[in-house]
Amino acid sequence: MAVDGVEVDLEARFAGIVGAQHIQAGEAIGERYRVDITRKYQSQPAFVVKPATVQEVSAIVTLAAAAGMPITMVGGQTGTVGSAVPVNGGLAMSLERMNRVVEIDPLSMTMTVEAGCILQLAHEAAEAQGALLPLDLGARGSATIGGVIGTNAGGNRVLRWGMMRDMVIGLEAVLADGTIISSLTKMLKDNAGYNWKHLLIGSEGTLGIVTRAVLRLRPLPSSRQTALIAAESFEQAITALRRLEVTLSGRLSSFELMWGDFFAAMTEAQLSQRPRPMELGHGFYVVVEAMGGDAETDLAQFERVLMDMIEENVLANAVIAQSERECEAIWAVREDMTPGLTPLRPFASYDVSMGVGDMPAFVAYAQANMAKAYPDAKMLIYGHAGDGNLHAIVSTGQLNPNIQRGFDTVIFGAVRDVGGSIAAEHGIGVSRAPFLSWTRSAAELALMRVLKDAIDPKHILNPGKLLDAM
Amino acid sequence: MAVDGVEVDLEARFAGIVGAQHIQAGEAIGERYRVDITRKYQSQPAFVVKPATVQEVSAIVTLAAAAGMPITMVGGQTGTVGSAVPVNGGLAMSLERMNRVVEIDPLSMTMTVEAGCILQLAHEAAEAQGALLPLDLGARGSATIGGVIGTNAGGNRVLRWGMMRDMVIGLEAVLADGTIISSLTKMLKDNAGYNWKHLLIGSEGTLGIVTRAVLRLRPLPSSRQTALIAAESFEQAITALRRLEVTLSGRLSSFELMWGDFFAAMTEAQLSQRPRPMELGHGFYVVVEAMGGDAETDLAQFERVLMDMIEENVLANAVIAQSERECEAIWAVREDMTPGLTPLRPFASYDVSMGVGDMPAFVAYAQANMAKAYPDAKMLIYGHAGDGNLHAIVSTGQLNPNIQRGFDTVIFGAVRDVGGSIAAEHGIGVSRAPFLSWTRSAAELALMRVLKDAIDPKHILNPGKLLDAM
Repeated sequence: MAVDGVEVDLEARFAGIVGAQHIQAGEAIGERYRVDITRKYQSQPAFVVKPATVQEVSAIVTLAAAAGMPITMVGGQTGTVGSAVPVNGGLAMSLERMNRVVEIDPLSMTMTVEAGCILQLAHEAAEAQGALLPLDLGARGSATIGGVIGTNAGGNRVLRWGMMRDMVIGLEAVLADGTIISSLTKMLKDNAGYNWKHLLIGSEGTLGIVTRAVLRLRPLPSSRQTALIAAESFEQAITALRRLEVTLSGRLSSFELMWGDFFAAMTEAQLSQRPRPMELGHGFYVVVEAMGGDAETDLAQFERVLMDMIEENVLANAVIAQSERECEAIWAVREDMTPGLTPLRPFASYDVSMGVGDMPAFVAYAQANMAKAYPDAKMLIYGHAGDGNLHAIVSTGQLNPNIQRGFDTVIFGAVRDVGGSIAAEHGIGVSRAPFLSWTRSAAELALMRVLKDAIDPKHILNPGKLLDAM
Repeated sequence: MAVDGVEVDLEARFAGIVGAQHIQAGEAIGERYRVDITRKYQSQPAFVVKPATVQEVSAIVTLAAAAGMPITMVGGQTGTVGSAVPVNGGLAMSLERMNRVVEIDPLSMTMTVEAGCILQLAHEAAEAQGALLPLDLGARGSATIGGVIGTNAGGNRVLRWGMMRDMVIGLEAVLADGTIISSLTKMLKDNAGYNWKHLLIGSEGTLGIVTRAVLRLRPLPSSRQTALIAAESFEQAITALRRLEVTLSGRLSSFELMWGDFFAAMTEAQLSQRPRPMELGHGFYVVVEAMGGDAETDLAQFERVLMDMIEENVLANAVIAQSERECEAIWAVREDMTPGLTPLRPFASYDVSMGVGDMPAFVAYAQANMAKAYPDAKMLIYGHAGDGNLHAIVSTGQLNPNIQRGFDTVIFGAVRDVGGSIAAEHGIGVSRAPFLSWTRSAAELALMRVLKDAIDPKHILNPGKLLDAM
């Protein structure tokens, strides 16, 4: 390949940067660097390189940019929209050797961590110091810090602690020309110039390569209360949400809403493993969780507010976990989805958002239009209701690009009708890009292109994704 | 003035957009559009225009851009660094006619508000619906929503609810070429493309003109607990902070740390109005506030954790407010600063940030270097300790540009030494710009310039501030 007009052996040059044992080429590249968890997109990158320092990352980017070779970051590959699948013939970069927790500062309540660190290892390092890194999601055992920053990951506790964006207070990154940019600060407040960190967070590797971050920690809660509650109407469920927010004031960490048919399908399929934690027949079920620092008071308060709402007919029922085992059984309804989803395979899944008050309209539109277009379709809805985030599973027993496109049209059309977003948590990547203009205006897309062209004018960083995939 | 090479009567053209009664020119322009609260910078803009709609804002920007006339937004003018002082001969734009609370959505817990709305009126509108707009600061009666977005304002409750950035979930703005860009969404989660909102927030009017926002509300807390506590060492004060964060778990809303000499000076000067709420002689004093939804339990828990810490010798003393009047008396120590500051006039004031754990080193450096450079200087330190944000007041009884520069050099030098920021809350504007490079690297400044040049290539929006003032 030519660099500045001169033919060079790129593999040798990359090997010169990272060492020959930290580069793989062509057929030698393992599958984990070529696909993501959905296995919907596959590719054959020219190289995988594994730098050990930010200086090596910078040198690799400088060389790749000179050669016009696109760069895609590969991490835990737990994304669902194709963002982290490399470009054919391009460069895949893995930070698996940059996986250290560099420092935990218990006075400042911050953790400095390299981007290749697995989320769960970061959790464990924080907990060992009596601190909580609040971002939590199912893929915690594989997802990397760089990945959850690049996608601005969410999860089950956003209601209380926010998304990854809200936990990143310092950042180090490499830009498309190899520049190392660093602001590894430890304070919550910094109004000194433009906040470039927020531009990189959630940009799916298209604006810069995150190499290190300072994350905000919280003191580790010492008590946890979990309940499964039932309400007959959506309005009652949201009344319960706001009531819990007031009474538990800051302690409420999860409010996972499930439509009645989702609850029925999941618990039915789980019966061989555990009994249903509550009877069928209610309109809505919610997994509620609160965390605090005062076990006795916290549990009494949690029980009282739930019982009050039952007496006032806001709630139809409530089961409060009295042990860790009961807590796990309640969470399993929402998290152990494999048995319930298996009969629906192949299915399409969605991650959309809207104002909490607009959820009933979204569901009504989506159900009506889905029934019209696919009378046999089964649709299950659940999600992080407090964040305005719903997930939907849609199945007709078969799936092909036409059907997928038909489902997408119904769901994203309903999202557009209520002023929502087609991507609450999972990003745009490749699979959502054709619909990005459905909820982003021409002016917004034009500004995004201006930003991309200004920061990565040659489109070296993760081309073919997000705006490039529209 | 020439627009596209043709001489035009700009005043008539602006009047044609907003109506003749909504434009003032030259000497007719009131002082409030020409200065900010510090009165350090003054100017004589050519016009003040007061549009009533985003379309009028867009038309004004389009015309001004064609004429090469710079635009500065004027709001409550409560900033302290000169950001909102217009350019001589330029255009001052006031959104005082765009001051409505457009909608409060109690299900989604959002408020849609025009940028000219006064913060306190937004507070009151939210409270009338049982909701809290958490951003609060001393200038609440004058500061506008556009202003607190443009400066990413902070205040006394950042510890719990974050800065303005964390409350803005939807935004409408006008870009430098007159483009109206709008994403007035109501959900917390939206990972569909680059987050341009975060780039505009805190950009001090240099990247776009915010015209409307959707803000996140919280259910209104029904209980409030306030205390003044004392600790002998900084480490003990921070131990108390973390202990309160755990035990009050999410309810802790303020932790306002005051060095002993600040407490002594303020309470001494206030003695004619109210008795000292606690004896002198301790190393550190803190105003602590928590809010919740369960008055009885909340107060008992608050009292217990403070008493526990006294028994364990973490705290030297604690006074818990038993009435609204006692609560006000405690807050007055921190907020009624005029009597205590008057004898120090003229003084320089600072708003800096750093990791909480780095605060003692910052104070030690600043005190040592100030004593060396200005043996007579008196320095008082206080701040939002949980956020890593300290304020400092420095006085030698006189102030001129040389002395100001000398103080700046000591304070910002100490900030640089501990990896902090020269502007925690108040922004850069004009007065802090010469020091921006002390805590921002060349790579960061270069990226900021790339962003500015891409979004506002003609530097129409608020030139002479921030990067332009370096």
